[in-house]
Amino acid sequence: MKHIITIGREHGSGGREIGRKLAEALNIPFYDNELVNRICKEKGLPQKFFSEYDERKGSLLYSLIMDLYAKDTNLSGNISLEQKLFNIQSDVINSIADEGSCVIIGRCADYILKDRKNVISVFISADTDSKIKRVSTRNGINEQDAKTKMKDTDNKRRNYYNYYTNKKWGYSYCYDFCIKSNRLGIEQTVFTLKNMVDFLGRG
Amino acid sequence: MKHIITIGREHGSGGREIGRKLAEALNIPFYDNELVNRICKEKGLPQKFFSEYDERKGSLLYSLIMDLYAKDTNLSGNISLEQKLFNIQSDVINSIADEGSCVIIGRCADYILKDRKNVISVFISADTDSKIKRVSTRNGINEQDAKTKMKDTDNKRRNYYNYYTNKKWGYSYCYDFCIKSNRLGIEQTVFTLKNMVDFLGRG
Repeated sequence: MKHIITIGREHGSGGREIGRKLAEALNIPFYDNELVNRICKEKGLPQKFFSEYDERKGSLLYSLIMDLYAKDTNLSGNISLEQKLFNIQSDVINSIADEGSCVIIGRCADYILKDRKNVISVFISADTDSKIKRVSTRNGINEQDAKTKMKDTDNKRRNYYNYYTNKKWGYSYCYDFCIKSNRLGIEQTVFTLKNMVDFLGRG
Repeated sequence: MKHIITIGREHGSGGREIGRKLAEALNIPFYDNELVNRICKEKGLPQKFFSEYDERKGSLLYSLIMDLYAKDTNLSGNISLEQKLFNIQSDVINSIADEGSCVIIGRCADYILKDRKNVISVFISADTDSKIKRVSTRNGINEQDAKTKMKDTDNKRRNYYNYYTNKKWGYSYCYDFCIKSNRLGIEQTVFTLKNMVDFLGRG
């Protein structure tokens, strides 16, 4: 049975790593930056455009890129560039989901695929101290900078999600399963999610 | 190793049943109405007082009972009766947690016990259709009345939780695990939670 697992996550929660390891454990494709690359390849849009966009609606840098890009392309029309980009991403996410089981990180994939029965939506959070430790170690920055980075990234993800969906980022009713990764640890969280997917696969 | 499992839940999600079955599976005490009885017994307060209170802060009936009760007791003082009642409940929940492993339903137990390391906080939700079916079957009422009952009860639970804690009822960051009960079903949700508790018990 085919299953699409979507994973939303707080910055520093290890959600991306959990998603990658879950995809490995289930032996199915994993889409994160790969997804961005694929969008670019399929739609002929420049990589830079998407890597700057990357769920960061409302950033100054993003606005500047959108302005510059608008001058060079025929993407303009009656709907906003942002909405067109979201529509392109939605098309690609739907085509990925058509292909077979996979794990998709972020990008409102749970909302885009909400009418499909084989979608399992997951949200990964973690206690603040655990996230600070992860972000500061990974990026080689101090605790205060890690906190600023976490807050900034999560605000952008929240704005992006709440803007494009009629739901609330991180609210339990929007997801099938929400897990604090530091409670079980990365490996056991992956194991728990894999068991859930296996169980649903039996149905 | 001792574990206190606190369970918040949407009305109609089956959270109480899941809590009861989890307690049975773990062979530990379960506190829901039992907790109310115990409060009454220990503090000498009338059963009726608590059964009307029951997480329904702000109801007219509750206010009337509070007014009537205030005339007959020495519970009045510098802090509100509501706060005093919450303080009494907090004392009892702490004493229950001191005794050993257990499952406690509702009553902000996750918040009251937040400084303890052995607390596992769970929130049970479910898709609306699933909740309507459960509530209408259980109460012998039609779908519209079930929806009204669900909304009313959840609003009261939300108000109660958000008033007494600095958190938001149902938001994933407030809990260790959030599960939509209709995805795995009651039995498998209990099994999943038991596995989590067993894993944490090994630590």
